[in-house]
Formats: sequence, structure tokens, C-alpha cells
Amino acid sequence: MARWEPNAHERLERAALEAFAEHGYDATTVTGIADRAGLTKSTFFRHFADKREVLFGGQDVLSALFSEAIRTAPPAASTVECLAAALAAAAVAFTPERHDLAPQREAVITANSELQERQLLKRARLASAMAEALRGRGADDTTARLAAQMGVLAFSTAYARWAVPANRHTFTEIAHAALRDLQTRATALGTEADAGAGVRA
Amino acid sequence: MARWEPNAHERLERAALEAFAEHGYDATTVTGIADRAGLTKSTFFRHFADKREVLFGGQDVLSALFSEAIRTAPPAASTVECLAAALAAAAVAFTPERHDLAPQREAVITANSELQERQLLKRARLASAMAEALRGRGADDTTARLAAQMGVLAFSTAYARWAVPANRHTFTEIAHAALRDLQTRATALGTEADAGAGVRA
Repeated sequence: MARWEPNAHERLERAALEAFAEHGYDATTVTGIADRAGLTKSTFFRHFADKREVLFGGQDVLSALFSEAIRTAPPAASTVECLAAALAAAAVAFTPERHDLAPQREAVITANSELQERQLLKRARLASAMAEALRGRGADDTTARLAAQMGVLAFSTAYARWAVPANRHTFTEIAHAALRDLQTRATALGTEADAGAGVRA
Repeated sequence: MARWEPNAHERLERAALEAFAEHGYDATTVTGIADRAGLTKSTFFRHFADKREVLFGGQDVLSALFSEAIRTAPPAASTVECLAAALAAAAVAFTPERHDLAPQREAVITANSELQERQLLKRARLASAMAEALRGRGADDTTARLAAQMGVLAFSTAYARWAVPANRHTFTEIAHAALRDLQTRATALGTEADAGAGVRA
């Protein structure tokens, strides 16, 4: 069998999502995924470390895109402009093909508490990577960590909206709108009554 | 041997932290911890599910304290006042004994990447619990999620400051100061130039 298979990555991803939907995530094996895609188990392992990576492998790519965009934003860019640049850079990962697969992917994760926890951890790691990149530009630690959480919230909100089958907006448009919305909430929370005023000595 | 052992929980915790520091977390066994504390393995398992729980068991207590404080805050309390109430409620967990053990606990976690990841996940779960409690009071989803991240950032910053051996301030004082500081950053980020203004059509 040829070692090079056209579209192997995408065929394996589609096969995996179908298998997860049909048999459940836990009952699906790598052999079952490879068979369904008409490929070998060793081809699977050239593309993914394990079946979980089919769902989450893209997050490492995202983390690298976010960090690089923040690092290379113009020196005068504000913190929020850096977040906007990071979200725009991530858009290359959100192709029409990915859009087609997104609802299945979301359904698999929603049905499995271990996968939900994995998603929570992956997003916490995305925030750590963004905070690190912002500190690298000279942001103080507190601002970097708060801004990174805003960036990841904008990302996760935007991803959910973008993944809706009827959506026709680009990921960047949706993500920038989500970020502006978060800025509004941040201002509102920032200007609420002084926290803990009633308990100070 | 008597089934009831005075201060067993604390003795096991001290013994575990000593053993982790001496032999490393991975090489420490539950039997080794129990022996060092002069207690049996079955006594250990009446107090902790496994050796990891010695480090992280308290986080479930925290999650419950946060949620309950947010749920029972006065109806007129603002979102930030709810966060301040949650942080004040958590203070009962931060006793002088806990303060003595904190530097050892932090050193064990810092030395082990799996434990750092566990801490990241536990904090992400704390944020989820806080967001859920805020939504329960009628906060919209975006505000609840952003505010919960502010709450957990205030918590983690405050914990690190409180744990410093020379610190003599109460956890609540430190946490409320951290929260006010985050409010200042939130306002600054919220009022920065409109995100993505340059890329809109």
C-alpha cells in the first residue's frame, strides 16, 4: 500500500467523527477509525497521536497562531489590538471543511464529561500561552492574565457562533464582534461599586 | 488500633508534603505517607481518595464556598460584590495551619508538570462553578463568564500573596485588593481602541 494517501488527515477525521457519533467515543478504536477511512492503523498514527487528538490536535496549532500573532503585532499595538490580531490569525484554521465537521465534533465533546474536561484544560492552556506572549511584549502580569482570559472567551464564544450550520460570517468578523462585546462587559465590571468596600477596616 | 485518630487529616497532609519534598511526588506512595504519619493506609483512604487529593482536595470545598456565597449574596448585590462575597467566604479555608503548609504545597506543584496541569484544570473548574452561580442570579452568559475569570484571577493572585511566609494580612484583605486591581485593568482594557476596527469592512 502506498505510504502517501491523498487527504488522509481529513478522511481520518471524518471517519473518526462518524464512528464517535455511531458507537460513542469510548467504544471507538483507532483500528475502527482506520478501517472506516479505508486506511491503515499506521497511517492513522502518522497523523494523530491517539483518537483524542482527532478532536483536540488543532488546539496546539491555535496556540502557536495566537502566540505568533501577538509577538509580531506592531510595537504600538494596544493589548486589545494584540488580542484582535491573535483572533484574526486563528481564522486560517476555520475553513469551510472545518465548518462542516464542527457540529459533529461539538456533539461528541458535549456527550462525554472526560472530553469536556479536556476542552476546559486546552482552553486554559491557550490562555496561558496568550498571557505569556503578552508578557513578552511588556504587559504586566495581571493585565496579561486578564486580557488572555478575554481573548480565550472571545475565541470560545466566536467558535460556538461560527460553528452553527447556518452561519455565513467569517470567523474573524464573529471573533472581533465577540471581543468588542467583552470590552463592554469589562468596562461595566470595572466600574461597578468598589469590591469589598463594606468589609474593609 | 483505634479507628479514630486525633488530627489524622492534618498529620497525613504534613507527612505527604514532607515525603513529596524528600522523595519527589511520583516516587511517594500512600503506604509511605501513612507510615510517616504513624497511621494505616486505610486511615489515609478515609481522608483522601489518593495522594493527589492531598494537594487538591481543598478545591472542591472552595468551589462549594464560592457558589454558595454567590447564591446567597443580597439580591441587590452587583456582580463584583458577588465576587467579593465569594472571596470572603473562601477565607475560612485559609487558616494559619494552611499558611504554614502552603510553601511546601506550592513547591511540590511547581516541580511537577502533571500537577501544574491539574491546578490549571481545577482553576478552570472553579471559574465554571462561579459562572454557573452568577448565571443563576440572572447575569447574562458573557458577563458571568468574564466575571468568573476575574474572580478566579483574584483568587489565584491572592492565594500566591497570602502564602508568602512573611505575609500577615488576612486572605480576604488580600483578595479584595486583588479584585479591585483587576477592576482597574478591566476598565483599561474595556476602553482601549475598538478591537478589530482596522479590519472591518
